[in-house]
Amino acid sequence: MAIRGGQESRSGRLVVLGGEGRGRGVGKVTLVGAGPGDPELLTIKALKALQAAEVVVHDGLVTDEILDLAPSSARRISVAKRKSRHSYSQDEINRMLVAFALEGLNVVRLKGGDPFIFGRGGEELEACREAGVDCTIIPGVTAALAAGANAGAPLTHRGSAQAVTFVTGHAQKGGEPDLDWDSLARPNQTVVIYMGVSMAAPIAARLMDAGRAGSTPALVVENASRPDERRIVTTLAGLPEAAATLSGPALLIVGEAMALARSSEGVGEGSAAVVETLIQEARA
Amino acid sequence: MAIRGGQESRSGRLVVLGGEGRGRGVGKVTLVGAGPGDPELLTIKALKALQAAEVVVHDGLVTDEILDLAPSSARRISVAKRKSRHSYSQDEINRMLVAFALEGLNVVRLKGGDPFIFGRGGEELEACREAGVDCTIIPGVTAALAAGANAGAPLTHRGSAQAVTFVTGHAQKGGEPDLDWDSLARPNQTVVIYMGVSMAAPIAARLMDAGRAGSTPALVVENASRPDERRIVTTLAGLPEAAATLSGPALLIVGEAMALARSSEGVGEGSAAVVETLIQEARA
Repeated sequence: MAIRGGQESRSGRLVVLGGEGRGRGVGKVTLVGAGPGDPELLTIKALKALQAAEVVVHDGLVTDEILDLAPSSARRISVAKRKSRHSYSQDEINRMLVAFALEGLNVVRLKGGDPFIFGRGGEELEACREAGVDCTIIPGVTAALAAGANAGAPLTHRGSAQAVTFVTGHAQKGGEPDLDWDSLARPNQTVVIYMGVSMAAPIAARLMDAGRAGSTPALVVENASRPDERRIVTTLAGLPEAAATLSGPALLIVGEAMALARSSEGVGEGSAAVVETLIQEARA
Repeated sequence: MAIRGGQESRSGRLVVLGGEGRGRGVGKVTLVGAGPGDPELLTIKALKALQAAEVVVHDGLVTDEILDLAPSSARRISVAKRKSRHSYSQDEINRMLVAFALEGLNVVRLKGGDPFIFGRGGEELEACREAGVDCTIIPGVTAALAAGANAGAPLTHRGSAQAVTFVTGHAQKGGEPDLDWDSLARPNQTVVIYMGVSMAAPIAARLMDAGRAGSTPALVVENASRPDERRIVTTLAGLPEAAATLSGPALLIVGEAMALARSSEGVGEGSAAVVETLIQEARA
């Protein structure tokens, strides 16, 4: 199989690099966390890396608003999963990053959230290390943090959330995720499920089977931090019904501290939330 | 007990506020995650909030470099825990934030990392809600994400870390932390312990008693993302010895994926790490 990165790259380009440990004719790869979606939730470091990029290899989760912060001369390559055309395998992405760097280019691998929270950044880092390519990582605000912040729901909280666990609802071999249900079912902890929307029904069932109360507060957040963010406050038992109404990327969050969460509609949440909703409507 | 915020605030100040849902003579509180320490790991949103602050109430974990981003006219109040003088209780901090906001001021509560990851932001949010004060939250890069990024150690990783859990080593009533050791001892997950340095010995012992192998890779990161960051690659069994060498705030990270971690000294890590160390030394 041909390396797509090799095919698509500008061959024969001579690059003279200085500073930053470069200058050996070899470029570098920076795995950059783009945060949850709101361009203002980029870190200053991520913004600088993006502005210095010669090639940007990005996910589907990264918005155009953020991509537009790269220089117009930078090459942009989407490796988003799409049904209509060939999706890049992780191995192809790894080889593409290495191939561009070996050509001397400054490669930014831009990922939604944080590169090391279900971003497969570890695999890309390993590929760079094996090829002798310098690879640095810029952390980002992972979606769970933005979801909790916007809902006003602390992921850890005195008395009701002494721990928070991030898991993925996406099973490596398809089917139901293989998680440690007994551990996740213990009370007084927050469980955040990334990529779990299509699996909401079996996830809720397994957690309840393992002993977590169906009345445990839960929060579903779609498109966290984007203008179309939607938050639904529910319970563990109500999770499947809430998740069924979503179409975009979303997080499922289960835990006692989610009792503090506020939905984006402000239903049943007292005057402060209603005022907040009116303000948001006025701004829109 | 007198409200310190009331004592310290500028009484009688008339503030005319516009936009942003204000204008009722009441100010607002923004809980802002300052990130792990490196000012470049502030988000753009956090930077803007800081630049608009009239009062900044901050932890000891927030560096002067970040505080200096607030306007020089803004009042700065440290609520850092100090042995030499009275430390503010959480209740006093809550009342201070509310008192300033009720005076019409734009209050930024600046916290290391993320406000909702062991930042007690939930309690401050609740105090604002009870007082009818508008409170918004800006998420931040929590220290664990920076520690993993700089060490090149993914917190989640295919095959070796299907989940990551954040816990605190700080016990609410003093003594040893009361954690779910059986859950944390399961393999193929990453456990991040915040504020656990002084408890490293009992934490390691409990995890091993509960069945986690003493040979499980572990990483200790002191002052993550700061110029004096130190990373020690060790094992669960070696955690107490590594932690004993530290003096600053640090994270303990335990999990199979920490096998990818690189110490800040580059010992025993092959040529790439050595080159990296030389580059860092050259920059310093």
